[in-house]
Amino acid sequence: MSEPSAGDGLLASIKGPRDVKRLKPEELPALAAEIRDLCVAAVAKSAGHLGPNLGVVELTIALHRVFDSPRDRILWDTGHQAYVHKMLTGRAGQFGTLRQEGGLSGYPSQAESEHDIIENSHASTALSYADGLAKAYTLRGERDRAVVAVIGDGALTGGMAWEALNNIAGSRDQDLPLVIVVNDNGRSYSPTIGGLASHLSALRTTQRYEDMLEFVRDNLTKVPLVGNPVYDTLHGIKKGVKDIFAPQAMFEDLGLKYIGPIDGHNTEFVEAALTKAKGFRRPVIVHVITRKGHGYSPAENHDEDCFHSPNVFDPATGREVPKPYGWTNVFSDEIVRLAKDREDIVAITAAMLHPVGLADFAEAYPDRIYDVGIAEQHALTSAAGLALGGLHPVVALYATFLNRAFDQLLMDVALHRLPVTVTLDRSGVTGDDGPSHNGMWDLSILQVIPHLRVAVPRDADRLRELLAEAVEVKDGPTVVRYPKGPAGEAIEAVGKLGEMDVLLAGDPDVLIVAVGPMAAICLEAATLLDAHGISATVVDPRWVKPLDEALVLAATAHKLVVVVEDNGRVGAVGDAVARLLRDADVDVPVRTYGIPQRFLDHAKRPKILNEIGLTPQALARQITEAVAKRSTPLENHPTR
Amino acid sequence: MSEPSAGDGLLASIKGPRDVKRLKPEELPALAAEIRDLCVAAVAKSAGHLGPNLGVVELTIALHRVFDSPRDRILWDTGHQAYVHKMLTGRAGQFGTLRQEGGLSGYPSQAESEHDIIENSHASTALSYADGLAKAYTLRGERDRAVVAVIGDGALTGGMAWEALNNIAGSRDQDLPLVIVVNDNGRSYSPTIGGLASHLSALRTTQRYEDMLEFVRDNLTKVPLVGNPVYDTLHGIKKGVKDIFAPQAMFEDLGLKYIGPIDGHNTEFVEAALTKAKGFRRPVIVHVITRKGHGYSPAENHDEDCFHSPNVFDPATGREVPKPYGWTNVFSDEIVRLAKDREDIVAITAAMLHPVGLADFAEAYPDRIYDVGIAEQHALTSAAGLALGGLHPVVALYATFLNRAFDQLLMDVALHRLPVTVTLDRSGVTGDDGPSHNGMWDLSILQVIPHLRVAVPRDADRLRELLAEAVEVKDGPTVVRYPKGPAGEAIEAVGKLGEMDVLLAGDPDVLIVAVGPMAAICLEAATLLDAHGISATVVDPRWVKPLDEALVLAATAHKLVVVVEDNGRVGAVGDAVARLLRDADVDVPVRTYGIPQRFLDHAKRPKILNEIGLTPQALARQITEAVAKRSTPLENHPTR
Repeated sequence: MSEPSAGDGLLASIKGPRDVKRLKPEELPALAAEIRDLCVAAVAKSAGHLGPNLGVVELTIALHRVFDSPRDRILWDTGHQAYVHKMLTGRAGQFGTLRQEGGLSGYPSQAESEHDIIENSHASTALSYADGLAKAYTLRGERDRAVVAVIGDGALTGGMAWEALNNIAGSRDQDLPLVIVVNDNGRSYSPTIGGLASHLSALRTTQRYEDMLEFVRDNLTKVPLVGNPVYDTLHGIKKGVKDIFAPQAMFEDLGLKYIGPIDGHNTEFVEAALTKAKGFRRPVIVHVITRKGHGYSPAENHDEDCFHSPNVFDPATGREVPKPYGWTNVFSDEIVRLAKDREDIVAITAAMLHPVGLADFAEAYPDRIYDVGIAEQHALTSAAGLALGGLHPVVALYATFLNRAFDQLLMDVALHRLPVTVTLDRSGVTGDDGPSHNGMWDLSILQVIPHLRVAVPRDADRLRELLAEAVEVKDGPTVVRYPKGPAGEAIEAVGKLGEMDVLLAGDPDVLIVAVGPMAAICLEAATLLDAHGISATVVDPRWVKPLDEALVLAATAHKLVVVVEDNGRVGAVGDAVARLLRDADVDVPVRTYGIPQRFLDHAKRPKILNEIGLTPQALARQITEAVAKRSTPLENHPTR
Repeated sequence: MSEPSAGDGLLASIKGPRDVKRLKPEELPALAAEIRDLCVAAVAKSAGHLGPNLGVVELTIALHRVFDSPRDRILWDTGHQAYVHKMLTGRAGQFGTLRQEGGLSGYPSQAESEHDIIENSHASTALSYADGLAKAYTLRGERDRAVVAVIGDGALTGGMAWEALNNIAGSRDQDLPLVIVVNDNGRSYSPTIGGLASHLSALRTTQRYEDMLEFVRDNLTKVPLVGNPVYDTLHGIKKGVKDIFAPQAMFEDLGLKYIGPIDGHNTEFVEAALTKAKGFRRPVIVHVITRKGHGYSPAENHDEDCFHSPNVFDPATGREVPKPYGWTNVFSDEIVRLAKDREDIVAITAAMLHPVGLADFAEAYPDRIYDVGIAEQHALTSAAGLALGGLHPVVALYATFLNRAFDQLLMDVALHRLPVTVTLDRSGVTGDDGPSHNGMWDLSILQVIPHLRVAVPRDADRLRELLAEAVEVKDGPTVVRYPKGPAGEAIEAVGKLGEMDVLLAGDPDVLIVAVGPMAAICLEAATLLDAHGISATVVDPRWVKPLDEALVLAATAHKLVVVVEDNGRVGAVGDAVARLLRDADVDVPVRTYGIPQRFLDHAKRPKILNEIGLTPQALARQITEAVAKRSTPLENHPTR
């Protein structure tokens, strides 16, 4: 496989938006082709987001021809469709380093470029940022700066986007220079759901679309780029001659101007529409129809998700290196099995049917699966409703996206003690996708929720076991969390301590509480400690909330208690163990190891674990030091 | 003032919905009047929500005449407009105990009645519950059960409501027996904002509304209650004869059927519309126009909020007992003062301009205030946008509602290290409004957010001081949190320890870390401890995140460290202090006191603080015991 490269064509000459503007319209298809080749080559090598980027090539070119970034601000919702933007803002040459440590991030990054703004890759935020930015520029008298938010139709299903639309439409600053580009490819990760999708689809499929394209070609592209007489005329025509334009009542009812739909793979059309939108200098929606995976047939023909985010693959054939059987597969198989005898089990996904492992469930029980769109809040509260109706919902999410539904899990599910099971995939350090994809917050925020039980399986067998236990709980919600990737070797218990599994029975030196998948690392650390003459007991609590009271007795039998977890250190299991012991008046020293409480730069998981000290060697070293140091302050203790 | 009573009229005869159905239509105005009298008398005595309940009297009567609760499920969004529902479901006689310990809750309560379902009083949830319930009944073959969600126009501005509408409209179960009643009074707490409000307003104010009322009267009320031929006819007519009906395109574009607008103070009209909706047996929106405070002139004429939630008042005159000058007023005055010299300060409220103390700011700086509706997510992310645009936003929220914007504060504000200040009013135990209004979660979830600083002032002077410090921070977000009510006496520092205030300098027995307003209680506890021969140092850290490193040195000089805070104990400042010491290899015993991690029943704040042991006496007792006990496990420590 050749190294991804910007080549020696048009793309190599693009050092920034100014160079994009210099190109002649007839050169743009060639530029688009070069960009697609580089996208395919880079993702084939590094994995990453492909389908979404192939879909926005012409749109991105048009954006940089019409607007003046960074003075005008271009905001990419979710951020995984910003590869083309990166290429056009001077970073095409770096695509060989995509998503590698020290290389290009897979998302916008302020450190990389002044053209990048939103680093968070959780969905549906861009319109809110845009609203704030536009208000700021208005207030500061910088009204010549346009703010452009590019948001997918999928992200519009998220409640935040609605809150923003409502505010933008109702703003007293009706001269906000704000352009909302709806990049409508009919999909989130998978096809977009809901009433909005039907509405957009109605806009998209009407015969009027074709008429409109002709109309745009004839009337829009020939006019001067500033001023808006044509837009006004157009708008007047639109109000009168319904046949020319598709229905767009919803947005207009809210008070938002609307231009579209536009063929998103025709740079000329998109440029014309954006130019009109820019000249309008009021909030306006530009509805652009694109095709996920456009221009690369393996992606176009990929049924599941148009190569949304493939593993490394052969660019010639599109043949993907299969991902190994992992935690997701274990969950997928087990939930199908459990649901066979339990007709009350229903499953919910927030627009991630395949990635969270619910595709098989959907096939087996088509009446019992609900895809709610990118809407984690609704996922949890509709689960509360399903549970009130006598069912047992299983809500499968990525760990980091649970943040969006904290209040709903707390106030709607837990307050009513409803039997809802939440499974959290991609927990802990995920690495490649940068700071907002690491699942390092859930164990902390979950600790505060009354009536909630939380399980962390250490291997595939334990995932099966704990998932089965979770769906049996009737008097409150349960969470089962597991990481990305393969589940590793099974680790059998050598004994029990209360409900905890004892993985290694040691002498009364150190008690290591290994949270879930940290078990393997902890056992290796114990071996290293043993070589230093320190004997360790290793236990896996299985359920980390509530903690087993047996921990208290076990702690009193050791000189040091250590907790190791794959979550931010603050407020998670380590803190819970320390509190349990304090509350029992057990003052055995405790040391807690986990992810330092900061946003992690993207890199491979093993590399990050090494950097943050979650390796057997680093743990053994720290524990050895703690054993050596920990008694020093005891001088202050009264001997009584 | 006479005791609130159900009297000896019609209301006294209502033991449940069956009795409501038995009344003749001509008796309903008298029933409505009795209900209003009881509402006014009960709230005049106990304080509580008045305006919203006066607005839904006829609507609630109609609901219980048309639907068969509890088999049909009636869900009240936000819950504070459920007083009438309580009266009609057998609880009118208990209104003398409203919002008192052991008495009627101000919100629906499953423990009180089988007719109550949603106990959480955070807004915009009802449609999601309804979606889940309706799906459950469909799946279980209980299609004869209707699910009715009553949601205000204000709550529709919340993103969750949009997520639910999108799902309900797009559901594959298009025979969901789901009736959405939009209770449109044009207000959240204050007038509803945004594009949606304008749209609803357009529906409301058209002349067609009057025509439609005539049409409904002539065509709807005379038809049989089951079957829907008239609805179908009506629907057909609607599609053809635009003059009869107001525009309702937005909802219909989403694929939702729409009936309305209906005069919500005419029981006959509302009953007819609900009957049609029930017979339709598909998701349908019934748009009901009501007037907040209807039927009680002091509420109708109350400009600020139609007596949304008054303090106790004289029912004859509506004269309210003034609330004492409290934390909110201090914030209000100070933020106006700070913004005078700092033109970059802008303020954001989520539909709570007066309650959070931003009314004066809005008057002083009308260009710099943004009311975003009930939309905490947008509040934080639009604040991120404003900060990216060079301003310093101050987002003023109730502490418990920050839960809704955890992800936005983490990923949109903190990840980008943006200078946004969040002020949290009503933190800690608030009491009267029950479990979902206590501000007991924020100090825990805030601990996990990198780059964030959190201040907890102990008195009014410190609030002024810390707010001023907060808006000076440029490299990340800040939070300042304070409780409900009056701020208490100023407590001056006797010295400094790092950046911490020393409030009492003691000998090396106990170091008490008093978090904000707990300072007064801690100082009293110290006095009691002194009488037991235990000497305490009391410090106020002022900034509880990050903690001052001086705490480490201070801890090593004491035999016991105690942390006292007005927040859930789990994951909050107590855990943070313990972690700080552990990480520094300082193993001085720590004891942490705060709110036990459970949902608290409603009662007065002092009563709850007493019950959970946050009193000087209880603290002194516990600390004395801890001093006595804490060395026991030290037997296990090596002496080295």
